[in-house]
Amino acid sequence: MPALYLKKLPTRAPENHHKNTTLRELKKLRQELIDLQDRLYAENKHSVLVILQGMDASGKDGLIRRVFSGINPQGVQVHSFKEPTELELAHDFLWRVHQQVPARGMVQVFNRSHYEDVLITRVNGLITTEEARRRFTAINAFEKLLQQAGTTVLKFYLHVSEEEQRERLEERRTDPAKQWKYEAADDHKASQWPAYKEVYEDVFAHCNPAACPWHIVPADQNWYKAYVVARTLRDALVKLDPQYPEK
Amino acid sequence: MPALYLKKLPTRAPENHHKNTTLRELKKLRQELIDLQDRLYAENKHSVLVILQGMDASGKDGLIRRVFSGINPQGVQVHSFKEPTELELAHDFLWRVHQQVPARGMVQVFNRSHYEDVLITRVNGLITTEEARRRFTAINAFEKLLQQAGTTVLKFYLHVSEEEQRERLEERRTDPAKQWKYEAADDHKASQWPAYKEVYEDVFAHCNPAACPWHIVPADQNWYKAYVVARTLRDALVKLDPQYPEK
Repeated sequence: MPALYLKKLPTRAPENHHKNTTLRELKKLRQELIDLQDRLYAENKHSVLVILQGMDASGKDGLIRRVFSGINPQGVQVHSFKEPTELELAHDFLWRVHQQVPARGMVQVFNRSHYEDVLITRVNGLITTEEARRRFTAINAFEKLLQQAGTTVLKFYLHVSEEEQRERLEERRTDPAKQWKYEAADDHKASQWPAYKEVYEDVFAHCNPAACPWHIVPADQNWYKAYVVARTLRDALVKLDPQYPEK
Repeated sequence: MPALYLKKLPTRAPENHHKNTTLRELKKLRQELIDLQDRLYAENKHSVLVILQGMDASGKDGLIRRVFSGINPQGVQVHSFKEPTELELAHDFLWRVHQQVPARGMVQVFNRSHYEDVLITRVNGLITTEEARRRFTAINAFEKLLQQAGTTVLKFYLHVSEEEQRERLEERRTDPAKQWKYEAADDHKASQWPAYKEVYEDVFAHCNPAACPWHIVPADQNWYKAYVVARTLRDALVKLDPQYPEK
């Protein structure tokens, strides 16, 4: 699998992408998504799993709102993975994740995912490198199983620059509409960024097969980030070419 | 993985195993199991998954009664896999299975299992050999995941001779206490035995790693079958050596 170095990858839109035209394209993409998702649901043959990963304040929540608002919620579900419960910890790390994978006809969005089990756990020294390697193998087998059952797995890393991240965390501290998201732990986590980059790159090196690659999304600008994810999802759905069943 | 040919494997107890002494040993084994399971539950560190497979009338239900009666039901659960529901069929074949794996501290018994998805489906032509091979790979990865999370996986095939099977199915037809189990489909299934043998042997050839082998249990005599399973389970628990936590 080709290595990916975050430092070398852009966090902003290319120069020729202007905000206004991109926002117009995003609007068109959302219309296409509404149509495609309706067909996917009606055909009841394939499913799509959208995995969103990124550092704190990389804008996962906002992205979900920007891309999926307007799509029939009967066919789209979002699951946010929080700290595992005691019962979840009493099972293998994929146990709670497997329960949330999409049924045929559905689009499922994971706000964080099983990748946390090889990221935060590693940064905090809860698992060894050896255990991480075993988990990479398990993750690859798991995602293959899903694909063989007709699920398209789309993995997105929201790539935000350290400067932008610092600004956003500062906003959380001061903006009344964002303060509820602020945790004192954020400051500690910010100091862990270099460690996170390293374990993310290890994920990209080991869990990045051609059939199910990571999309590294420049994520400093919310409008561009939403556009890239919507376009990638649209392309994946077009490839599935879902058809309304004949009566 | 070493091949296993059912024709060459015994369906009856070795000559030197007498019914009465074996039943006495089984009684002792059950006492040991009660003690070991209690420690497993208290220690809350490992778990055991017992997978029971076998042709119709190979005696899975009776075996569960004989081996597990008397053990604290708080620490032992039995799950019988029936024909998949519509929702289950809308997911990969391991989706419903993964939900039922044991939590730490538990013994879980599968009465039939994910192996049906490479047995009955194959005999009835619902999946290709190629798909079966893909599922073998998925099954091996799945069982490895469980083992890495601290689950001992014990797989038993209850090996009954065709003569004994025929007799048991005949009993189902005539014995009032067993008639509820009789289905007209049993007769059809009996004609599929050679096909079942073949796909079972393919399972033994592909899903039989050293860390998680199949135990082919001579199953013509109920007392011997229960003894072998109880002994294997006891040995596995002794190996885990569960300890009461210190206060």
